[in-house]
Order: sequence, then C-alpha cells, then structure tokens
Amino acid sequence: MTLAKASLTLAEFLERPETEPASEYIDGEILQKPVPKGKHSHLKLSLSLAINQVVGNAKLAYALPELRCSFGDRSIVPDIAVFEWARIPFDADGEVPDDFLLPPDWIIEILSPDQSANRVTQKILYSLQHGTKLGWMVDPHDRSTLVFVPNQLPTFFEGSDRLPVLDPIPLELTCEQLFGWLKMNPAG
Amino acid sequence: MTLAKASLTLAEFLERPETEPASEYIDGEILQKPVPKGKHSHLKLSLSLAINQVVGNAKLAYALPELRCSFGDRSIVPDIAVFEWARIPFDADGEVPDDFLLPPDWIIEILSPDQSANRVTQKILYSLQHGTKLGWMVDPHDRSTLVFVPNQLPTFFEGSDRLPVLDPIPLELTCEQLFGWLKMNPAG
Repeated sequence: MTLAKASLTLAEFLERPETEPASEYIDGEILQKPVPKGKHSHLKLSLSLAINQVVGNAKLAYALPELRCSFGDRSIVPDIAVFEWARIPFDADGEVPDDFLLPPDWIIEILSPDQSANRVTQKILYSLQHGTKLGWMVDPHDRSTLVFVPNQLPTFFEGSDRLPVLDPIPLELTCEQLFGWLKMNPAG
Repeated sequence: MTLAKASLTLAEFLERPETEPASEYIDGEILQKPVPKGKHSHLKLSLSLAINQVVGNAKLAYALPELRCSFGDRSIVPDIAVFEWARIPFDADGEVPDDFLLPPDWIIEILSPDQSANRVTQKILYSLQHGTKLGWMVDPHDRSTLVFVPNQLPTFFEGSDRLPVLDPIPLELTCEQLFGWLKMNPAG
C-alpha cells in the first residue's frame, strides 16, 4: 500500500484519473490498494457471483467488486460493495451510475498478506459509521471472518459457523463453504 | 502459529508443561504463539514498563507481559495483561499467584507479521465478553492501534491520537509516542 500526503480535497481527488490498483482517499491521504493475489481475487469473484446468483432476477441487491464509493470525506474502493437494489442510484436512463456517492449496505474486505488489518478494519468502521449495515473482514489464510454490525463488538466466525448476510439476500453460507471456493482443483 | 486438535479439557491442558513460546487453549484447540520478533518484543517491554512506571507505588494497577489467563473455557496468554490492583488474586502470603483464573482488565495484543489479525482479535473479543474493560490491537508495521471496549464498535487510532487507557492509570500516550519507542537509536 503506497501512501502519499494529499493537498487536495475529496472533489479534486475524484477528478484525477483512476489508477490500477485503485487509490483511496482517506483522512486527506491517497493510499493505493495492493496488487491483488490469487486467493484474494478468486474469493472476491466467487463471493460476488454467489451473492448475485442467489439474488437472481429478484432485484433485491447487487454485489459490485472494486466499486468506488465516496461518502463523508473519504473515497474508498471496497473489495466487494453490496447495495440493496432500492439504494442503487440508477441514472435517468435506468443505468448504473458512474459515481456512487454513498456507502455500501454491506462492505466486504478480503485481507491480503501485505495489508494492515487495522487499516482495512478502519475502512469497515468508517462505512458502518456512515450507514453501512454489515461488514465482513475475510482472512483467507486464517479461514476466518470477522463480522461487523453498527454499535456492537465484531464477531468471529470460522468452520461450520453460518455467516450473517445482508437482510434481503437469501444466501446460506458457512465459513467452510466460503473458503472451500479456494480449492479450485479438488482432485489435484 | 501451530495448531493441534486437543482431546483434552481446559483443566487437563493446564496440567501440561508450559511451552516456549506459550501455547493457548482456545475452542478445544491448542495453538502455540509465534516466536516474537524484535519490534514485537521491544514494544511489549516498553509498554509494560511505561504502565508500571506511571502507576509507581500507588498500587492502582499492574501490567504483566506473557501472563497466562484462564477463564471461561479458554486459556490465553495476552502479550500484555493489565490488572487493576484490587483484582490481582494475591495468595495468602501476599505474593502474586501462579495461576490467574480471570480475564485481564486491559488486554494488549501486538500483531506480528505471521499472525492472523482475525484470530488475535478473537482473543480480545472473548476477553471483553468475559469482563475485560479495554482491549488494544497494536500494529507496529502500520503504526496504528484498534481500541476495543465492551458492546461497541472498535475505534482506530494513529498519529497524534491520544490512546485511551485503563481508568485508574494516569498514562498519557499518543500513537506516535507509542511507536516512537521502536526507534532505539534515533541518531543512527
């Protein structure tokens, strides 16, 4: 995660071209996300697909990986941002907008080995303080997930624990099942 | 962190000889703590000394590094366990007991690069659910601290933020000052 002290405002930051990996604007600083590794990318994709599959055509919610969400005085790019359908700010043509100027309803972060857990947790905490209802901190190496909801201590999940999901989404998933997706070649 | 499935009870675990590094008994499993590295060891010592120095002879509280605390159905060894003086279970001779069968009032964990933050957080959460009043998750590499109190979301501290300490302890410490202790040779 590179770090540069910004002398620009959130609005000025948002006018800058996107970087790859994405950069975030937090506490007046620009921080670039680490280059995602295999486990991280694979879980991000599998989990986004799983959420969108169970939702199907029911228009309950939608999961968007690596979506920029700007709110408060920050601009963050959660690994996965899940929005209740009614909160997606579709534009006049009914299309997904370019800019999401609101926090996700459910923020999912997947810890990379080169990331500071405290700093990633801070993104989840900030979101929860701004209206996010549910946060997951997924550690693929530990096979565990910390679950955050507003105004409470987080809860630790592992093994056969069933993970709490955003309310309208009919997803039943245990930690074991989540990390089972990492095994792409079970016969190998 | 090595991991072995235990088929023994907490009482049986406590009868086994201590290991080096210490082993913990969590959810019926025995987990050995990682071998501490330089930053970790140095912060642990500096912070323990700082707490015990400001307390002085006032018998307000006492910080004990690597103390085994057994409570609920677990036996953990926090990096630093701080007890209010009145809660230290002195034995009949007024000496510090061998066994602390209670949670610390303040638990401090210092994250090592080879530890899972989720799993270390779980130790803090379990303690808070059993009577601990304050928890710190210190990340020396990120220069940040997550602070936990019961029934609330944790709070992120960095830079000039003043860290909350256990109530009777007159310690004034910012994150900067805490991590400043890592610089042992400022002229070097």
